[in-house]
Amino acid sequence: MITLYGMTDSGNCYKPRLLMALTGRPFRHVEVSAHDGTTRSAEWLAKNPNGQVPLMELEDGRLLPESDAMLCYLGAGTVFDRSEPFERAAMLRWMFFEQNSHEGAVAVRRALTVYPSRRAAATPERMALTLASGTSALTVMDTHLGREPFFGGNTPSLADIALYPYTATAEEGGFDLEPLGKLRAWLMRIESLPGFRPKTWLPET
Amino acid sequence: MITLYGMTDSGNCYKPRLLMALTGRPFRHVEVSAHDGTTRSAEWLAKNPNGQVPLMELEDGRLLPESDAMLCYLGAGTVFDRSEPFERAAMLRWMFFEQNSHEGAVAVRRALTVYPSRRAAATPERMALTLASGTSALTVMDTHLGREPFFGGNTPSLADIALYPYTATAEEGGFDLEPLGKLRAWLMRIESLPGFRPKTWLPET
Repeated sequence: MITLYGMTDSGNCYKPRLLMALTGRPFRHVEVSAHDGTTRSAEWLAKNPNGQVPLMELEDGRLLPESDAMLCYLGAGTVFDRSEPFERAAMLRWMFFEQNSHEGAVAVRRALTVYPSRRAAATPERMALTLASGTSALTVMDTHLGREPFFGGNTPSLADIALYPYTATAEEGGFDLEPLGKLRAWLMRIESLPGFRPKTWLPET
Repeated sequence: MITLYGMTDSGNCYKPRLLMALTGRPFRHVEVSAHDGTTRSAEWLAKNPNGQVPLMELEDGRLLPESDAMLCYLGAGTVFDRSEPFERAAMLRWMFFEQNSHEGAVAVRRALTVYPSRRAAATPERMALTLASGTSALTVMDTHLGREPFFGGNTPSLADIALYPYTATAEEGGFDLEPLGKLRAWLMRIESLPGFRPKTWLPET
């Protein structure tokens, strides 16, 4: 069985949990905080030199960091994957967008807002920069949803699972979703998928 | 033939050019600046709502943004791709790292340093933040290269092509590669690949 090391409250850690819930794949969860120094310890850095959670461990001990890479691995061959080359690239396009244009603003601004350990880094300049770039990313998503119902075509894909967690908690970071009606409707479509579980859900041990 | 809209000096735009050079795939280059307002025009935003270059256009008119998604599309089935599921995920891991931990610091600090249009955004706080996070990303790469010669195993992969451009110009952004000997050796290994072309290279029209 796969072991997922992660912090329950992290959207990045929620992504592979959500996919495994939606696809009915059993896994083991081990809570690892990104706020108490664990992920900067020599032991952790030997497992993931980038010092982050989540980290996935296969039964044979092989390790995989990076939440979106986990989605690609765990999602291969499921209805959330795309096999036709252009459709696959069009899905990955939104996963790279999520990591480059969305996460570094929408997720980071939420972290700066809700975690006491990040408060010193929440300077006025950084809060303004993440508000502007995060609002831009959320607006790009809303615009896309005027053309297609999901981020990989007509059915939900791995890109939707990558984009859902931090979009769903954007308001905790001070983002206003009220003007983004198509985005709010998409959040509800994801939440009504069979097998959907909220971020606080963890598998029984 | 594929058309690539991009800015010659952009590392993101260089990535698909480099892959097509290495694989001998002909393409058409159309210069589009990210600094003169073109990419914020209504016409451009209709093509790419995220307002960025590069943008790839297939012969049938289909459009694909995001440099790393282009690498996945153009690289499918080449020696730079990985087909075994875990190896593929381990390659994508570094491509997501590139977009999340590397580009937003190493590339952004270079842009803030070399482009006059970005100078107002080059505040002391932002320069310090991108220096710290970019140095961390480059160090993570150097550490990895102590275990494997490339970022997808024993031969160069799409992840190496994703990571090369902005690592090669990191010093233009004020990053010190002198202590990162394994990283400098890797840059030279990429530059010695058959078919390698520098960033200034463009196909004959």
